[in-house]
Amino acid sequence: MKKRYLLAPGPTPVPESALLAMAQPIIHHRTPQFSEIFKETAELLKYVFQTKQDVLMLAASGTGAMEGSITNLFSPGDEVLVVNGGKFGERWGKISEAYGLKAHWLTVEWGKAIDPAVVKKALDENQNIKAVMVQASETSTCAAHPIKELAALTKDRDCLLIVDGITGVGVFDLPMDDWGIDVMVSGSQKAFMLPPGLAFVALSEKAWKFQETAKVPRFYFDFKKERKNLKDNTSAYTPAVTLIIGLRQALLMIKEEGLENTFKRHDRLARATRAAAEALGLKLLAPESPSNAATGFFVPEGVDGGKLVKYLRDEMGVTMAGGQDHLKGKIVRVAHLGYFDTFDIIVAIASIEMALSKMGHKVAFGAGVAAAQQILLEGYK
Amino acid sequence: MKKRYLLAPGPTPVPESALLAMAQPIIHHRTPQFSEIFKETAELLKYVFQTKQDVLMLAASGTGAMEGSITNLFSPGDEVLVVNGGKFGERWGKISEAYGLKAHWLTVEWGKAIDPAVVKKALDENQNIKAVMVQASETSTCAAHPIKELAALTKDRDCLLIVDGITGVGVFDLPMDDWGIDVMVSGSQKAFMLPPGLAFVALSEKAWKFQETAKVPRFYFDFKKERKNLKDNTSAYTPAVTLIIGLRQALLMIKEEGLENTFKRHDRLARATRAAAEALGLKLLAPESPSNAATGFFVPEGVDGGKLVKYLRDEMGVTMAGGQDHLKGKIVRVAHLGYFDTFDIIVAIASIEMALSKMGHKVAFGAGVAAAQQILLEGYK
Repeated sequence: MKKRYLLAPGPTPVPESALLAMAQPIIHHRTPQFSEIFKETAELLKYVFQTKQDVLMLAASGTGAMEGSITNLFSPGDEVLVVNGGKFGERWGKISEAYGLKAHWLTVEWGKAIDPAVVKKALDENQNIKAVMVQASETSTCAAHPIKELAALTKDRDCLLIVDGITGVGVFDLPMDDWGIDVMVSGSQKAFMLPPGLAFVALSEKAWKFQETAKVPRFYFDFKKERKNLKDNTSAYTPAVTLIIGLRQALLMIKEEGLENTFKRHDRLARATRAAAEALGLKLLAPESPSNAATGFFVPEGVDGGKLVKYLRDEMGVTMAGGQDHLKGKIVRVAHLGYFDTFDIIVAIASIEMALSKMGHKVAFGAGVAAAQQILLEGYK
Repeated sequence: MKKRYLLAPGPTPVPESALLAMAQPIIHHRTPQFSEIFKETAELLKYVFQTKQDVLMLAASGTGAMEGSITNLFSPGDEVLVVNGGKFGERWGKISEAYGLKAHWLTVEWGKAIDPAVVKKALDENQNIKAVMVQASETSTCAAHPIKELAALTKDRDCLLIVDGITGVGVFDLPMDDWGIDVMVSGSQKAFMLPPGLAFVALSEKAWKFQETAKVPRFYFDFKKERKNLKDNTSAYTPAVTLIIGLRQALLMIKEEGLENTFKRHDRLARATRAAAEALGLKLLAPESPSNAATGFFVPEGVDGGKLVKYLRDEMGVTMAGGQDHLKGKIVRVAHLGYFDTFDIIVAIASIEMALSKMGHKVAFGAGVAAAQQILLEGYK
């Protein structure tokens, strides 16, 4: 017997109540029974997105909603600013270019956040830029970008702020309407605590205006059509019925905890993880602007990060994420978003301590755990 | 307590073993554990698609794979022939036009199959036609189109046969390689006995050649990228993990029954349903070329089909499908694909008899059931 722990930044663990809700006999999607669930779920999504706008539910991975955010709002030749600080920032640019947009790339060192002044300068210098595309949380580097500051820059311009909130929404505060985020995308397998297969997207009034004149071709990801269907408590094409049933369950859990408490919990778990890494002498990947979704740290000199992640997974049953591209083999990423609590962090830290020791690295057992405990205790009366 | 029976042509009932497989704690998609499942599932899919080609798995509804079949294979301005004999035939044309293709529409009366001679004439008259797009089974009318004959027409031309097999693959015989079908699409919520959210598509060598020069923009549905990832037992974007785990389970069931037996079962259930409808004096929607996926029949004069379907669903707990567009209120569609057996058909027929009687229609109770029983008995030693 090997007990398994999933501590990677997506898919994240699915609560048992959501698993069981999804395991019930399937129902037809064009029935009052499902419409009722769809309607309730759509309302709950607004709460988590902190918006009065409709939140569309698409049967797709998050990338599908990213693509739709481009194909529904722009025309070939439109100029956009892409904040490229990791795998997912890069994706904004690749999708834009695939659809004939002119992408201006703002490259940021992996692990760093974009400096809003750089974006301001780019916008000031080129009045043709129709959108800034960025991640709230760049999952590949565990860094958070300054969304509030970026929204302040786009708010009064004829330019949209398009935010990949796949590991941001429901993780930390991203008040879409208050800040003036124009497009916010998310996915089921992160803070929404569900299996992958559902993507979400909400648009501001300003973004819906862009939609009216957008000429990039589209069909499956047709936001206008989805919004029209949403008013009738349905979707344009067959919805991912079971995932939406699970979503309702997961959203009820978030509502019950209260969004603010959810954010506090994620913040506490994230700080504890970072403190533990530092106590173990592990250099953080994004020390200045860390995301509360996941913590990345460099493995010590002489340790192969790939082997470490493999050892943790195959020998200890603990699944974390390694690095991508040039960070491959150099980092480990521990998640703390969604269905995570105190003792998931303890498991994460203790297993890292033990695995590092197995890799020949000298570890003071319990040093990381102790640093985490100190912070995790804040969660208790 | 109201016991519910799902007898609509998708989503179809999900076997308990698949529900339970999907209810297990989620696993990460970039692990040897999931790769193993992915690999096995991809192999099993080839068996059901009757092809040596890769069968791609996309996180989307079936429409997503239909879209991809167009965006990955053609360029704006390309001419295609669309067999429009229902809602889904129409969809081929709409997607083609959304992406700038020139669609030539071959309109077929709802409930009828396309005459291959009409397609031959169109192909002979216009050598520029690059594809024929058709449904193996047009779910909205319960009619089957003559795929074998159409494949014979496209085989030796520079023209692809693109088949929507969403309610065809795994329902009746569609030997992709043998017949020379170039693109075959399907979806999880039909014969694959799963919740919606997964789409499948396989391409012939000839179709892959078209892919090389296709210029319609695409990103999320990128077949070349998916094929490349499939070789590494993974997908381009986060896969719908739980649905793929359920798929493996469902495919094992199909394999165990044997595809030929699956087809025989569907054929028997379909014949029984048609015989029952006829015994009850209900006019079939597609008498000449019926699909074994579902049977559609006109409701008797004086009965409101919408009310009948609603009564069945809300009072009797039996969900069937009504008609779409101009058939709204006029027909009922009973499914018999996927996780369906003898007594599902008995329930369907008995409930229709009883509900029709409640609607004031004179019914000889048991007449439909008896006609079905006669045929259903063939399934037993």
